[in-house]
Amino acid sequence: MVIISATIKDVARKTGLSIATISKYINGGNVLDKNREIIQAAIEELNFTVNEMARGLKTNKTRTVGIALPDLNNLFFTSIVSKIEDVLLKDGYGTIICDYKQDYDLEKKKLEFLVNKSVDAIVLVPSGKEVNELREILESGIPVILIDRLLKDIECDVVLGDNLNSSYNAVETLFTKGHKRVGVIVGPQEMYTAEQRLKGYYRVHEDYSFKIDSNLIKYGDYRMDSGYALFKELLSMDDPPTAVYVTNYEMTLGAVMAINEMGINIPDDLSIIGFDNMELIRVLNPPLSVVVQPMEKIGETTAKLLLKRMSGDNSNFPSINRLKSDLIVTKSIGKAK
Amino acid sequence: MVIISATIKDVARKTGLSIATISKYINGGNVLDKNREIIQAAIEELNFTVNEMARGLKTNKTRTVGIALPDLNNLFFTSIVSKIEDVLLKDGYGTIICDYKQDYDLEKKKLEFLVNKSVDAIVLVPSGKEVNELREILESGIPVILIDRLLKDIECDVVLGDNLNSSYNAVETLFTKGHKRVGVIVGPQEMYTAEQRLKGYYRVHEDYSFKIDSNLIKYGDYRMDSGYALFKELLSMDDPPTAVYVTNYEMTLGAVMAINEMGINIPDDLSIIGFDNMELIRVLNPPLSVVVQPMEKIGETTAKLLLKRMSGDNSNFPSINRLKSDLIVTKSIGKAK
Repeated sequence: MVIISATIKDVARKTGLSIATISKYINGGNVLDKNREIIQAAIEELNFTVNEMARGLKTNKTRTVGIALPDLNNLFFTSIVSKIEDVLLKDGYGTIICDYKQDYDLEKKKLEFLVNKSVDAIVLVPSGKEVNELREILESGIPVILIDRLLKDIECDVVLGDNLNSSYNAVETLFTKGHKRVGVIVGPQEMYTAEQRLKGYYRVHEDYSFKIDSNLIKYGDYRMDSGYALFKELLSMDDPPTAVYVTNYEMTLGAVMAINEMGINIPDDLSIIGFDNMELIRVLNPPLSVVVQPMEKIGETTAKLLLKRMSGDNSNFPSINRLKSDLIVTKSIGKAK
Repeated sequence: MVIISATIKDVARKTGLSIATISKYINGGNVLDKNREIIQAAIEELNFTVNEMARGLKTNKTRTVGIALPDLNNLFFTSIVSKIEDVLLKDGYGTIICDYKQDYDLEKKKLEFLVNKSVDAIVLVPSGKEVNELREILESGIPVILIDRLLKDIECDVVLGDNLNSSYNAVETLFTKGHKRVGVIVGPQEMYTAEQRLKGYYRVHEDYSFKIDSNLIKYGDYRMDSGYALFKELLSMDDPPTAVYVTNYEMTLGAVMAINEMGINIPDDLSIIGFDNMELIRVLNPPLSVVVQPMEKIGETTAKLLLKRMSGDNSNFPSINRLKSDLIVTKSIGKAK
C-alpha cells in the first residue's frame, strides 16, 4: 500500500494505546510483544503508512542514500550502483540516483539536491574539479563515500580499483610473452583513473628497463569512437606495436570493432588486452584478455562502509579501499615473433 | 552552498520584513520589487537555503519527479531518462531515479518509496504484471506517465514507440528486396513491446500473402546472449533465412558477434536489420540497417507531458503518444538471390 491515508492518531484510537507507544513502535523502539501485535494489526487494517517526509523531520533520518554519477549511460558505474542497492535494500535503505552528466556545475547542483532531500549519506563518483562543496557536506556530518576516483585535497572515505597495478600487471604479462612494443590507449590525463593506468604502464617499463616509444601512447576520451580511431592509428604506424592494451571498456569495444573491420587475426597478427568483463566481452571470438575491475566488490565494500558510517561508527576515517583487479588471460595473447 | 544554516527568521530579522513576506518570496509569490532585492541580498549574505523537506510539508510540492526503471544497466532506458532530466532541469525539477531490477515486488516497493518521498509526479516503465499499486497512486492525484509499455487495464498517460509498425516497415523493406524467408529474433511474448514487434511481422506477411514458417521465429529474452545463440540457430537451419530481423539492441549486439565469429558476409551471404541506433551500431562495418526508436522524442514528450500534468492541466487524459520509429537503411540489406 502506498497511499497515505490513516494517521498515527487513528492507529492510537484503534488500539487504545498512546501515540508515544505507536511512535516508538514505528521508529523501531522497544514495545511489549502484546502491543506490537495489536499495533501491527491496526496498521494493516487502517492501511497506515509512515509519511517518510514528516518522519524525516522528526528523526532526522530518511533511510535514504543519495548516489551521484557522472554518466547514467556508463555500464561500469551502473553495475556498481546495482550492487550498492542490493546490499542497502536488505537493510531497508532506499536510494536516490542522480546523473550529473559530466557537468561540473550540475555536480554541485545534484549534491545540493541530495542534501535537500535529507539523505543519510552520499556516494559520489567525483568529477575531480572541485572539493569545496564536498568539504561542506562532510563538515555538516553527512557521510560521503567517493568511488572510482581519489581526490587529493580532501579527507574522505574512498573505494576504488587499483588502477596503477592493474596496468602494471597487464603490460608485464605482455612483456613475459616477449612483447616489447606495447601500444596503449589511455583516457584523459586529468582524470584520476586514466593518470593511474598510464603510470602503471610507465612504471613497468622502468622496472624492466624498456625504453618507451611515446608514439605508442594514444590519448583517448574513454569513449568507443576514440578506441576505434586510436587503435587504427596504432596499427597504421610504420613500426606498429605487436601488442595493444586498451584501458577502459568503451574504448575496448571500439578497438574490437576496428579489429573486425581490419580483419586482424588475434593473436597471430596482434596480442590484445582490454578492460572490464562486461556482457560484450563474453561473446567475442577469440575471447579477449581483460583487466577485470572488481565492480561487485567495489559496490559491496561501498555499501558496507556506508552502513558503518551511517550507524555513527567513524573508526579508521578516512578509509581508503584500493581493490585489486583480476587479469583474465585468454588466447588473445600470443608470443611475440 | 548546500548546508542549511540560517532560518527564515534570520532573514526576517536581517531585512526587517515579516516572516510572511519572506515566505511569500521563497514560494514564488508576489513581493514588492524593493523587498525582493532586500530579501535576495539577505539570503545571499546569510547563506540561507530552503529546507526542501520542511518546505515540501507546507506546500506539498517538492519539485521532484520520480522515475522507476526495470533495469539501470539498459542503455535504451537510461538514454530516455537522460533526455527527460534535461528538459525537467530547465524547469528546476530534480529527479529521483530508481531501478526495480525487473523484480515485480521491488517495483511496488520503489513506487512506494517514491510516493513517500512526496514526488510531484512519477515516470514508470511498468513490468506489466500488476496495476493495483499504480491505480492507487493515480487515484491519490499524483500524475503518472508510463513509458515504453502500454498497460491495458488502466487509464494512464503513456509515451511509447510504435513497435508494431516499425516491425511492419522493417520486414516490408526486406520483402521489397525479394526476401521471402525472413528470420526474426523477438523478445518474451508476455512483454508488450515484444508482442507488438512480432505482431508487425505477422501482419506484413498477411498483407503480402506470404506464408510464415514458424521455424523462422526465435523467441529470445532481449539479452545479448540470446541474440547470439538464436542467430546461430537460424543460420544453421537446413533452409536458412536470406534475411534476419533482430528486434532489440542487446540481441542485435549478440547477432553481430555471431556474424563476426561465423565470418558471414553482409549483405552477400545475408541481409540484416537490427534495432536502436546506439554507439556500437555506429562503428560497425558494414553499417547495420536499424530500426531507430525515437528515444530523444520519447524523453522530450514525456517531460513536456509531465510538466503539463504537474501544472494541473488534465486535458486529453489519458494521452496515448505512440511515436514513429525511423528505419535507417544501409548496405546491410541486399537483394535476395
